[in-house]
Amino acid sequence: MSWEENVRRAVPYVPGEQPDKPNMIKLNTNECPYPPAPGVRRVLEEFDPDTLRLYPDPQAGELVRALAQYYQVEDSQVFVGVGSDDVLAMAFLTFFNSGKPILFPDITYSFYDVWAQLFRIPYQTLPLDGEFRIRREDYRRENGGIVIPNPNAPTGIFEPVAVMEEIIRDNPDSVVIVDEAYVDFGGESCIPLLKKYDNLLVVQTFSKSRAMAGCRIGFALGNPKLIGYLNDAKFSFNSYTMNRLTIRLGVEAVRDRVYFRETVGKVIATRERVKDELAALGFTFPDSRANFIFARHRQAPAKEIFSYLKSQDIYVRYFDRPRISDYLRITVGTDREMEALTGTLRKFL
Amino acid sequence: MSWEENVRRAVPYVPGEQPDKPNMIKLNTNECPYPPAPGVRRVLEEFDPDTLRLYPDPQAGELVRALAQYYQVEDSQVFVGVGSDDVLAMAFLTFFNSGKPILFPDITYSFYDVWAQLFRIPYQTLPLDGEFRIRREDYRRENGGIVIPNPNAPTGIFEPVAVMEEIIRDNPDSVVIVDEAYVDFGGESCIPLLKKYDNLLVVQTFSKSRAMAGCRIGFALGNPKLIGYLNDAKFSFNSYTMNRLTIRLGVEAVRDRVYFRETVGKVIATRERVKDELAALGFTFPDSRANFIFARHRQAPAKEIFSYLKSQDIYVRYFDRPRISDYLRITVGTDREMEALTGTLRKFL
Repeated sequence: MSWEENVRRAVPYVPGEQPDKPNMIKLNTNECPYPPAPGVRRVLEEFDPDTLRLYPDPQAGELVRALAQYYQVEDSQVFVGVGSDDVLAMAFLTFFNSGKPILFPDITYSFYDVWAQLFRIPYQTLPLDGEFRIRREDYRRENGGIVIPNPNAPTGIFEPVAVMEEIIRDNPDSVVIVDEAYVDFGGESCIPLLKKYDNLLVVQTFSKSRAMAGCRIGFALGNPKLIGYLNDAKFSFNSYTMNRLTIRLGVEAVRDRVYFRETVGKVIATRERVKDELAALGFTFPDSRANFIFARHRQAPAKEIFSYLKSQDIYVRYFDRPRISDYLRITVGTDREMEALTGTLRKFL
Repeated sequence: MSWEENVRRAVPYVPGEQPDKPNMIKLNTNECPYPPAPGVRRVLEEFDPDTLRLYPDPQAGELVRALAQYYQVEDSQVFVGVGSDDVLAMAFLTFFNSGKPILFPDITYSFYDVWAQLFRIPYQTLPLDGEFRIRREDYRRENGGIVIPNPNAPTGIFEPVAVMEEIIRDNPDSVVIVDEAYVDFGGESCIPLLKKYDNLLVVQTFSKSRAMAGCRIGFALGNPKLIGYLNDAKFSFNSYTMNRLTIRLGVEAVRDRVYFRETVGKVIATRERVKDELAALGFTFPDSRANFIFARHRQAPAKEIFSYLKSQDIYVRYFDRPRISDYLRITVGTDREMEALTGTLRKFL
């Protein structure tokens, strides 16, 4: 079968398990434990299914406008896609095209090297320091682009905007992507820097703070030129990515500022409580500003805790990788879910 | 701004206009004039919006199984994506990777050369004959892959499966993609050939015969090895492309065989009637087996007819391109819409 010789071989990203058991406690893929905004329910009630016969607006204009309004930027500064993975993949394809290696931390979102391999972009990972912090001076070398999640995943560590600004300023010849999937849980966005730097692309998602992982909406903000290039690539790949329902659902989710603040506030409050409880149980962890805690126990191996929790239908995430194989990434769920978690941990330990 | 030097420049596909006027007659993007299956409405009524907080099944297993059952293939032979454009783009990226030119007709779906350019795949277009038919002997040269729509767009011409089989058989070292977006309107699918040829990928869509352009569902059928490679690439690009609602909506649409046959039957009946009326008005056209008619008038220039129809809020598609600039592509709408069209044409001519 010699057609096989010409196949682009890819080593795919492995997403977290998506078990579907009736009484499981799912703390493994950083979903929001609360439902989407009430307006989302109304969309489903009022949506005319007959309109599904028609193509959606390829620009997803209504959603673009809602996001532009929310973040106080121009419509021409907003790009939307099928989850932030779609947005990031298109950005890698569009901007990381120089032949020079792109830079990102050694411990980070594990999709970056997968995209680089898929698109044959050379890359270099830069080791975080012993505390999992970015060494900003590392980002002063020649490169074909930079991508940094802030807060970082899976550590949850937030780097001050001033650190990000230095990196953006030091690299005017590269597009710098700041992946802010978790920024709403107590970080600070780089969006205000868009006014000063034309090489900055900020990427966010509806999957975490907006409780819509099941909907697949991500977006990027940047200067109009940069967004224009991204749209050209997107329209060379697939014109109609955002379906009619998703556009409407996304609009209603963005508009409800009060519900958004409440939801995020509850997650943060729970996270801070859980930090104390985990510490009391003998865990240590970097100070998370995300909706998860990256924790290791002083004695018990992470892999054993992971397996025990799983046997009790509590799912957390374990990465069998260098430097982080002692850690568990635990999503912040509801208070009740977190009590069940700490109770189960207490029993095991 | 020297980051711009490294941008992948793409000349995007330009989709048909998506006007949204209250009384317009939209015959320009080959949508189905009838609503999706009744089960689609039920999904919207019964869907629990709270579940949108959770990621979808990355395998879209329920939809894959429904399609496998419908087409009587194994689950491992089905790949789903965000419209057939997503499926085709992933297939181009995955399979057209040899450095040798891929082949497709000179008059065809205008996204093929856009994808080739985006992914830097060399390509060669092979001229259709004077009747817009494929010259099968052209497909015997060395190539890095082949893609042929059947029925072809925008001509509507269907080539017998035997012709496709020859091309597939002649090219065991290439993946041959048969793009069957319009096959349900009177063509015959190459799906049965999957048993004989491991280099065949058949791509179809929910946007036409299943009346769900607004939902964005496409799929490919092939042997498990080929589908496996496609999934590896997909999981290297974006794990979660099909959202929770879309998966459910797609399943219900596939299951309703009776409604599907009725809808397709109505479109075909209207098309055949309209053919007679267009002929009586002085139009000529290849014999369409799709949900559109590719027609030219004996006297009146296509561009003028197009503009007049648009002034009357009737939208058809005009391609200002070599060899086809005398033609209009007219989607088959409801009987009432087509009466309005032919009435307006009568007035103009």
